[in-house]
Amino acid sequence: MRYELYYWTGIQGRGEFVRLALEDAGADYIDVAREQGDAAMMPFLRGNHPGARPFAPPFLKAGRTVIAQTAAILFYLGPRLGLVPQSETARLYAHQLLLTISDLVVEAHDTHHPIAGSLYYEDQRAAAKKRAEDFRQRRIPKFLNYFESILERSNGKHALALHSYVDLSLFQIMTGLNYAFPRAMNGLRPKLPHLCALAERVATRPRIAAYLASPRRLDFNESDIFRHYPELDAKQLSAQTRQPGDNAGVTK
Amino acid sequence: MRYELYYWTGIQGRGEFVRLALEDAGADYIDVAREQGDAAMMPFLRGNHPGARPFAPPFLKAGRTVIAQTAAILFYLGPRLGLVPQSETARLYAHQLLLTISDLVVEAHDTHHPIAGSLYYEDQRAAAKKRAEDFRQRRIPKFLNYFESILERSNGKHALALHSYVDLSLFQIMTGLNYAFPRAMNGLRPKLPHLCALAERVATRPRIAAYLASPRRLDFNESDIFRHYPELDAKQLSAQTRQPGDNAGVTK
Repeated sequence: MRYELYYWTGIQGRGEFVRLALEDAGADYIDVAREQGDAAMMPFLRGNHPGARPFAPPFLKAGRTVIAQTAAILFYLGPRLGLVPQSETARLYAHQLLLTISDLVVEAHDTHHPIAGSLYYEDQRAAAKKRAEDFRQRRIPKFLNYFESILERSNGKHALALHSYVDLSLFQIMTGLNYAFPRAMNGLRPKLPHLCALAERVATRPRIAAYLASPRRLDFNESDIFRHYPELDAKQLSAQTRQPGDNAGVTK
Repeated sequence: MRYELYYWTGIQGRGEFVRLALEDAGADYIDVAREQGDAAMMPFLRGNHPGARPFAPPFLKAGRTVIAQTAAILFYLGPRLGLVPQSETARLYAHQLLLTISDLVVEAHDTHHPIAGSLYYEDQRAAAKKRAEDFRQRRIPKFLNYFESILERSNGKHALALHSYVDLSLFQIMTGLNYAFPRAMNGLRPKLPHLCALAERVATRPRIAAYLASPRRLDFNESDIFRHYPELDAKQLSAQTRQPGDNAGVTK
């Protein structure tokens, strides 16, 4: 089966969660828009293609089946790529975790676009600063402490009993948050040992390491979901006030 | 099987999408927090209960299985309640539609809380007015025109070939948006004949009609996801400028 992935060119975006799974499994796939341009997605988005009509990219074509929504694509691919246990309970659990990761992704995006995706960041910067502050101080800790507890609840190494697409997606979350909010993440990291170790381990998996070093892995950039705007990150703490393991704002 | 639904008391919220499916199917279920108080959810949310740890309500307990995330709960319940076709393709399609409905629900919520769920509405009213304007003019039309096209693509009556939990959820979306944004929805309704007819049909299904007339169906209120704040709705058009079928701001 040669999978066809459809996602906007030029950014990692939500497509990256699917890409990481395909790459980690060594799957045969085409990144269609990157080869043919974004216009290749339009017949699907306009409803001119048989099968499910996607509301937005990413979507996957597998034979005649079209599947949209990142978490649903991974739910479909998981057992086919050997990236989730086969039992229904485990598959549902993995899916629930992925849906929670998807919620975090929406919130990460809305830190720089709290008013409207149709407006420029510069036109909503004041609201963005407020939303980003809440995201850094309350929401990132709430989400990441939750995922840290999920790793503890399992075996400390994986979200599920074994390596899965959930681990790959947690890697992407940690990498994206580190890029967008490096100072805030510096403060949080000491309380997230399992998540940090997981992200490092995933990066050294042979196929993932090869992928990350390849031109297929785009750099993060300020058209993407995770954007580095220094004014949205935590303030630089002075050497005097900054304590090792300082963890202000973390709610357990 | 007696299902246990866990969701915050006092609002319809995301739990309502699950309730509508359970009620429509005449399933045996307990609305646990409404009987025992919100504290009954805490052991699950704190991770002190075996099985999947939910990030947030709603979650469902079915025997020993715990499932969180609204769309995942419906994915699980769908075939068990006869509310989705059995084929994998149809189940995935229904799920993808539900995930898109979930995206709309997040955006509906964020119209009154664009900065932070931890702040009062009154403390983010200026940003809310801007976000609500974009939601009314761009996002509601984009989502609802999409779902209208899904009904056209099927048989005009149902999102899938037959009645499903997707239809029940579309009813809830239409009802919630009509409550929160009555003036904006007045302008959009003429272009959404299939969605409007579906919502009316669902309301007359015998078990749904009985449920809606029962005390189990809470009224919408301003602690809920869909809130009616007149200042977030469209302006009242004067009789002179208001045209029948006026549909300004609808993007196809």
